[in-house]
Amino acid sequence: MTAESRANWSAQDTRLACRRGELAGQTSGLAAGYAQANLVVLPRDLAADFLLFCQRNPKPCPLLDVTEPGSFTPTRAAPGADLRTDLPGYRVWRDGKLVEERTDIRSLWQADFVSFIIGCSFTFEAALLRAGVPVRHIELGVNVPMFRTNRPCEPAGIFHGPLVVSMRPLKPADAVRAVQITSRYPSVHGAPVHIGLPEQLGIADIGRPDFGDAVPVAPDELPVFWACGVTPQAVAMAARPPLMITHSPGCMFVTNLRDEHLAVG
Amino acid sequence: MTAESRANWSAQDTRLACRRGELAGQTSGLAAGYAQANLVVLPRDLAADFLLFCQRNPKPCPLLDVTEPGSFTPTRAAPGADLRTDLPGYRVWRDGKLVEERTDIRSLWQADFVSFIIGCSFTFEAALLRAGVPVRHIELGVNVPMFRTNRPCEPAGIFHGPLVVSMRPLKPADAVRAVQITSRYPSVHGAPVHIGLPEQLGIADIGRPDFGDAVPVAPDELPVFWACGVTPQAVAMAARPPLMITHSPGCMFVTNLRDEHLAVG
Repeated sequence: MTAESRANWSAQDTRLACRRGELAGQTSGLAAGYAQANLVVLPRDLAADFLLFCQRNPKPCPLLDVTEPGSFTPTRAAPGADLRTDLPGYRVWRDGKLVEERTDIRSLWQADFVSFIIGCSFTFEAALLRAGVPVRHIELGVNVPMFRTNRPCEPAGIFHGPLVVSMRPLKPADAVRAVQITSRYPSVHGAPVHIGLPEQLGIADIGRPDFGDAVPVAPDELPVFWACGVTPQAVAMAARPPLMITHSPGCMFVTNLRDEHLAVG
Repeated sequence: MTAESRANWSAQDTRLACRRGELAGQTSGLAAGYAQANLVVLPRDLAADFLLFCQRNPKPCPLLDVTEPGSFTPTRAAPGADLRTDLPGYRVWRDGKLVEERTDIRSLWQADFVSFIIGCSFTFEAALLRAGVPVRHIELGVNVPMFRTNRPCEPAGIFHGPLVVSMRPLKPADAVRAVQITSRYPSVHGAPVHIGLPEQLGIADIGRPDFGDAVPVAPDELPVFWACGVTPQAVAMAARPPLMITHSPGCMFVTNLRDEHLAVG
């Protein structure tokens, strides 16, 4: 199986490969053109507050779909999918602590689970690359650098915490293009929340991200910051639910939604 | 006549007030909602090259209308207008030198004159203000600071010269909004050409503009740069045509085009 042929997979091909245990690594570059998503699974008694948190913080927490309680199929984002098996990797959190990584969560499934399918920056990064705007961490083959900011999210019930941002260094003209391009994708974090001046976000050292990998920012570049899908995970963890399940980093849920169908305008 | 009632003038009201000699000052704030424009009048033998220059440099030189040779009415932008009388002030240039300021150019009119109606930033500034994005030079009641850059325009015939940019200091989140808002107005300079890092544009001192007035840039702000309508004037002057007529600074031509009709998307 070459990388090229995997890029040509459909979303369902990718999910079935996971379901059969034939795909254990990261999903970046697979099923090109299909939107990949973050997964957060919570018991129903926390789900209403988490849903409200996402509604109040749409830039870090853009919801592509929310399942009916107990259902493991997000019928709008991926009819036919099984969220218990169709991701390459899962993380299991108990009382806010990571306790296990798995490739299948069927044995953990509960009738009161609600799953949140949350937009991911892969969609807008693909659009940036198509427009000729370079994406540093992709060029370097590392994870995007992410930073906790001094900006609190709008709280909802037990859920609260700081906005987490991802950073991509861009030349000024590319930063303008990146605002234009990512503004078309509100359901995958949308336009940047900040350009330049990292100290305004409470970021003391742009070379030391809180998550992901550091990437260099050249003297003729500006750090450009987007709301990050790590925010809802970090917030959910901080609330220390007895049980929560998420995707493993980079092991995203591949939806049937086409990247271009998420574009407005 | 109060400022408020003048804001409620139609475009034609404003032009007729100029024609009757009842309005001699700047047009900022008059006929709110109507697009105001830069004027460049050149003899026909230079007009073809200047038209090509504008076509090749649409960000500094967005053409709203070009008249038929000899006609003093831009029929698309302002039917019924008389470009010889309908601006509060004109500048007359001979061999690239300013020789006279007038309120009427009927006695100078030539049968071979071609008039260029060029979009003006007033339109996007109104949109910024409506969106709650502050515009520093308007707050301070001064002219926008403008800078020659190290970026050459695409030459055409005898016309060539550097891109001139206007600068507005904005907080980072407002800079993002300003990209979104001004992107909707490609016919009035559109999105910024640059954000931050003035030295990349060859601007040594942001406090010393080449035209207009200096405005302060706060530590929590970025200088945001737009292509400027002074570019075509500066370029036309540099070509030293035997005779050229332009509007006087701030004494714009008020068109019948509604600002909102110039918005795309």
